[in-house]
Amino acid sequence: MVNEMKAFQLAARGNKTEDTIIQVTGPAGPVFIGEGYCTIIAGPCAVENRDDYLHLAQFLASSGAHLLRGGLFKPRTSPYSFRGLGKEGLDILKEARLATGLPVITEVMDIRDLDYLVGEVDILQVGSRNMQNYALLDELGKLDTPVLLKRGFSATIEEWLLAAEYILAQGNGQVILCERGIRTFEPYTRNTVDIGAVALVKKLSHLPVMVDPSHATGKWDMVIPVAKAAIAAGADGVMVEVHQDPDHALSDGKQSLNKDNFLIMVNQIHRLADMEKKKLNTR
Amino acid sequence: MVNEMKAFQLAARGNKTEDTIIQVTGPAGPVFIGEGYCTIIAGPCAVENRDDYLHLAQFLASSGAHLLRGGLFKPRTSPYSFRGLGKEGLDILKEARLATGLPVITEVMDIRDLDYLVGEVDILQVGSRNMQNYALLDELGKLDTPVLLKRGFSATIEEWLLAAEYILAQGNGQVILCERGIRTFEPYTRNTVDIGAVALVKKLSHLPVMVDPSHATGKWDMVIPVAKAAIAAGADGVMVEVHQDPDHALSDGKQSLNKDNFLIMVNQIHRLADMEKKKLNTR
Amino acid sequence: MVNEMKAFQLAARGNKTEDTIIQVTGPAGPVFIGEGYCTIIAGPCAVENRDDYLHLAQFLASSGAHLLRGGLFKPRTSPYSFRGLGKEGLDILKEARLATGLPVITEVMDIRDLDYLVGEVDILQVGSRNMQNYALLDELGKLDTPVLLKRGFSATIEEWLLAAEYILAQGNGQVILCERGIRTFEPYTRNTVDIGAVALVKKLSHLPVMVDPSHATGKWDMVIPVAKAAIAAGADGVMVEVHQDPDHALSDGKQSLNKDNFLIMVNQIHRLADMEKKKLNTR
Amino acid sequence: MVNEMKAFQLAARGNKTEDTIIQVTGPAGPVFIGEGYCTIIAGPCAVENRDDYLHLAQFLASSGAHLLRGGLFKPRTSPYSFRGLGKEGLDILKEARLATGLPVITEVMDIRDLDYLVGEVDILQVGSRNMQNYALLDELGKLDTPVLLKRGFSATIEEWLLAAEYILAQGNGQVILCERGIRTFEPYTRNTVDIGAVALVKKLSHLPVMVDPSHATGKWDMVIPVAKAAIAAGADGVMVEVHQDPDHALSDGKQSLNKDNFLIMVNQIHRLADMEKKKLNTR
Repeated sequence: MVNEMKAFQLAARGNKTEDTIIQVTGPAGPVFIGEGYCTIIAGPCAVENRDDYLHLAQFLASSGAHLLRGGLFKPRTSPYSFRGLGKEGLDILKEARLATGLPVITEVMDIRDLDYLVGEVDILQVGSRNMQNYALLDELGKLDTPVLLKRGFSATIEEWLLAAEYILAQGNGQVILCERGIRTFEPYTRNTVDIGAVALVKKLSHLPVMVDPSHATGKWDMVIPVAKAAIAAGADGVMVEVHQDPDHALSDGKQSLNKDNFLIMVNQIHRLADMEKKKLNTR
Repeated sequence: MVNEMKAFQLAARGNKTEDTIIQVTGPAGPVFIGEGYCTIIAGPCAVENRDDYLHLAQFLASSGAHLLRGGLFKPRTSPYSFRGLGKEGLDILKEARLATGLPVITEVMDIRDLDYLVGEVDILQVGSRNMQNYALLDELGKLDTPVLLKRGFSATIEEWLLAAEYILAQGNGQVILCERGIRTFEPYTRNTVDIGAVALVKKLSHLPVMVDPSHATGKWDMVIPVAKAAIAAGADGVMVEVHQDPDHALSDGKQSLNKDNFLIMVNQIHRLADMEKKKLNTR
Repeated sequence: MVNEMKAFQLAARGNKTEDTIIQVTGPAGPVFIGEGYCTIIAGPCAVENRDDYLHLAQFLASSGAHLLRGGLFKPRTSPYSFRGLGKEGLDILKEARLATGLPVITEVMDIRDLDYLVGEVDILQVGSRNMQNYALLDELGKLDTPVLLKRGFSATIEEWLLAAEYILAQGNGQVILCERGIRTFEPYTRNTVDIGAVALVKKLSHLPVMVDPSHATGKWDMVIPVAKAAIAAGADGVMVEVHQDPDHALSDGKQSLNKDNFLIMVNQIHRLADMEKKKLNTR
Repeated sequence: MVNEMKAFQLAARGNKTEDTIIQVTGPAGPVFIGEGYCTIIAGPCAVENRDDYLHLAQFLASSGAHLLRGGLFKPRTSPYSFRGLGKEGLDILKEARLATGLPVITEVMDIRDLDYLVGEVDILQVGSRNMQNYALLDELGKLDTPVLLKRGFSATIEEWLLAAEYILAQGNGQVILCERGIRTFEPYTRNTVDIGAVALVKKLSHLPVMVDPSHATGKWDMVIPVAKAAIAAGADGVMVEVHQDPDHALSDGKQSLNKDNFLIMVNQIHRLADMEKKKLNTR
C-alpha cells in the first residue's frame, strides 16, 4: 500500500511548493479555481434545447455562477435513455458562452469528439464512469485544456490521484479533481458523498478539489447542506445541476435545484467562503 | 422499501410537531442537545487512569466542551487488546463530573452493567457494533436516561432509525442519533463519514443528530474539517476524542486531537454555529 | 494489517495440527461437523407453532437433514415485526429433537437466555448482528456447548476470526464459522455470498466453515446453486431455511425452500460430497 | 427499480426462447460457449515475449484450454506500470493461434485499436474498467465479433446487463458475460467474487456467463476452489490466468496459476462438468 501510494508523483503535494491555481478565461474575463478561491459551476445536466439553455444561462450568470455546465453527451446506464444532443448541442453552448461571458465546461466520453471540442470549451470533464478510461486520459494529457476529473463512483482516493497522474504524466498539469459521491450499500441516496476525501486530497495533492453535491446525493433537497459541508471541509468550489423546471428535465431532474434554491445556495456559499477567507470570482 | 420506510413511526418527523430537544443536567447546570443548539462532547477514547482523566477533563471544561466522554468498556476487535477499566473506572468518571460540573456519557455493551451505570451517568451510549443488539435496545427503552445511538458501520439510514424506534417503542423518547462513519472500500481512512445522512436524517426525523469525526476518519488531521462539515450540513453537534498525549494513548491515539487542536476546532465550530444561528450551551 | 492478522492465535491453522471436528449428539446418535464431513442443517427461520414444526422436522429428518434449526428469538430490523415465540418455543424444539432424534440449533441474542437454553439445545448460534457482541461471546466462551458463529454482514474475514477468538480465548474451542453473505451495493439480492471467504478461511483456520445460502441470497431460487458452490469451494456443510408453506411464513418466506426443493438440494449436495470424498453423516 | 429492470430487453431471457450459444472457430476447429458447455479460457495476463507465450500456449492447448487469452493492452492503475506490448504483441498472438489451433481473446481499451484487431482475434474482451465506456460498446455492437463483457468491479447486475444491451442494441448478439469479482470492504482478497450473480444472471438472461477467478480473488491458491464453485453454481466456463513463472510475471503474478496447478484445476473442472452434464469442447 505504502509503495503504491508513492506512485502518484506529479500530483503529490511534495512535488510542487505551491497549490495549483487554474485559470480559465471566458469572454467576460478570467475565472480561477484552486486554493483560496471558491468557484461555482452550474447548469442543467444536459443541454436540451437552445431557448431554455440560453434563458437559464443568463439567470445563472447574473446569480452567482462562475462557469456554465451543459452536457452534450450523456453517459446513460440504459442505451434507451436520452443520450444528449451530441455535437449539435455545441453551438448552443458556444452561444451561451458568448451571451453570458462565462467559460463553459462539458463532458467528453469519446476520444473522437476531441477533434471539435478542443478550442471551443474551456474545461473538458471526465465523468465518473470514464475515470479509468486510460486511452481518453492519455489524450487529454496531450492537450492544454484544463480537465475536471470526477472520481469514479467506486474508485479509491489513490486510484483517483493515479488517474490524474495519467493526465499530468503526458504534460497537462491543469487537472481539477471533483468528488461526486461513491457507491455504498445505502439505498436511500444515489451515492454517498465522501466529505473526508475532500479534506484528505487537499492534504495529499496540490490540485484543486471541487464537489458535485447533485450526483452525490441524487436529491435536490440535500444539495444545499452537502454543498455547504463541502466548502466547510475545504473544497475549492461546487458544481451543481440547476434546471428551469426540474420536474420536466430529460435527465437528473430529481437532483436539480430550481432557480430559487440556487439563489439560496449561492447566498449560503458566499457566507461560508467569507468565513473561510476564500475569494469569490467576482465579475 | 417504501412500506418498510413506514416502519419507523415514533422517530418520524411526521409523528411530532416539534424537534426533540434533550436536556441533561450536570452539577453546573443543564446542557441541551437538538435543533438550534450546537453541542460539543469531548474526552479520551477510554478512561485510562484517574490523574490523566481529571486533568484532561478540567482542560476540556474550560475550553468549550459541554459534555465529557470517557469509555469504561471498550469494544475491541481483538480479545487481546485493552478493553477498558470497566466498573472501577466509573468512580473516576463521577469524580470528573463533580470536579468540572459537566454531565458525562459512557458506552454500555452489556445489559448487566446497567445495574450500576443508571443514575450515575447522564447519557448512555450504544456503540456502532451494538446498534442492532435488540436486547440492549429494549432495556434502554425502559429507562429514562438519554441514549446516544451510534449508527452501525454498515447500517442503512432506515435500519438506524428503526434501531432508535426500538428504544422509543419501549417508552424512552430521549434518543440522540450519532453518525460515525460507514464502512466502504476505501482503505486510506478508517471509515467514510456519510455527511448526506446527517442532512437526510434531520429531514426524516425530529431526533437530534450528532457526528463523531474521530471514528469516522481515524485520522486526527481530518477531524477538524469533517467536524466543520458536520455543522455546515446541519448536525446538532460533534463528539470528538481528545487525549493529553495521543502518541501514548491505549486506544484510538491516531484519531485523537491533542489539546491545541481541540482549541482550534472549538473556535471554528463557534464561528460556524454563529453563522447557522445555533446556540452554544454556555456555562 | 499484518500485525493485526497475527492477533487470532487459537483460531489460526498454525496453532493446531489437526482440523477441528465438532461432534454433537442427538437422541439418535452423533453428528459431525468439520473437514471431511458434509453436514446439512435445515429448518424454518422461526418456530411458529407446534404442529407445523413437528411435521416439518419429521420430513427433514427423513430427507437428509442432520440437524434441525428453529429460531426462538428473531433479530428483526423493525421492533414491530414478529420476533419469535421466545422461551415458550423451546418446548416445541425439544419435542422435535426427541421425535426425530436429531440435534438442534437455535440463536441466542440475550445473555440472560443462556440460563435455560444451555443443556437443552445442541448448538448455540450467534447471528450476524451479534458477531461483535463481545459480552455474549465472552459468556459463550465459558460454556462447553458448540457455537455456530455467523459472519457479520459487513465483517472482514479478520474480524470474523477474531470474534471466534473471543470464544476460544475463554476456553470453548467448539466454534463453527458460518458465512451468510455480506452487504454490498447490489440491490437485487439480499446479500452477496462471499464464496472466496470459504476457501480462505479453510486455509487460515482449523475451524469448520459452513454456508447459509438462504440469508446470503434472500431468494429461494438461488439457494440450490449457491449451496452447491459452497460445497465445491470447500465448505463443510450448509444451513438452509425450509418451510412447509413459504408463501405464508411469518419471516423469511422468500428465501425458504419448500419440501420439494429441499429434496432436490439434498440430492445434489450428496453427489458433490461424493465427488469431494466428504462423509455424509449417516443415520 | 422494477421499471428500470425492464430496460434490458434484448438481453432478457423472455426475449429469446433459446439460450445463446456462441461459436468461435480457431484453426483447429470450433469452440462453443454457452448453456450445456464448459469452456476454459487460459493464458497469461499479458503477452510478455514471443518465446514464453508460444511455449505456454502449447502447454495450455495440450492440457485442456479451449481458448487462449493474452493481453496486448493492459489497463493499469498507475501510468508508470507495464502497459503491455501493444500492437506489436498481436503478431505473437496470431502465431500462437496458428501453432496451437486455438481461438484467441484479447482486451480492447481504445476504439482506434479496433481497426487492426478485428479479423485477427476471435473474441474481443471489454475489461471491468470499461464496462460503461459507451462509445466502445456502441462500436463493438456494430461488429460481428463475439464480445466478452466483464462486469464492472462495482456494477450492479442490472447495469451489467444494460451494458450488454448497448452491444445487442447495435446488432451484435454475441455477448459473453464474465463475472470477475466486485469491490467490497474486504482487504484480504483483491475482490469478492459474486457467485450468486452467476446463478441470477443465468436466470435473467439467455447469454453465456463465465467467471474469472484470478482477478476475482487476486490469490492463486484461491483460484481452484472458486473456479469449482463457479461451475457448481451454473457458470458456462472459467477464464484463468496461467504463467510459466508466476513469481516473475510483469503483471498479476500473485493471482496466476503455474502449470501444475492449471492441470489440477482442469481435472477438477472436468469432473464437475461431467456431474453437471456439460459438454467439454473436445479437440
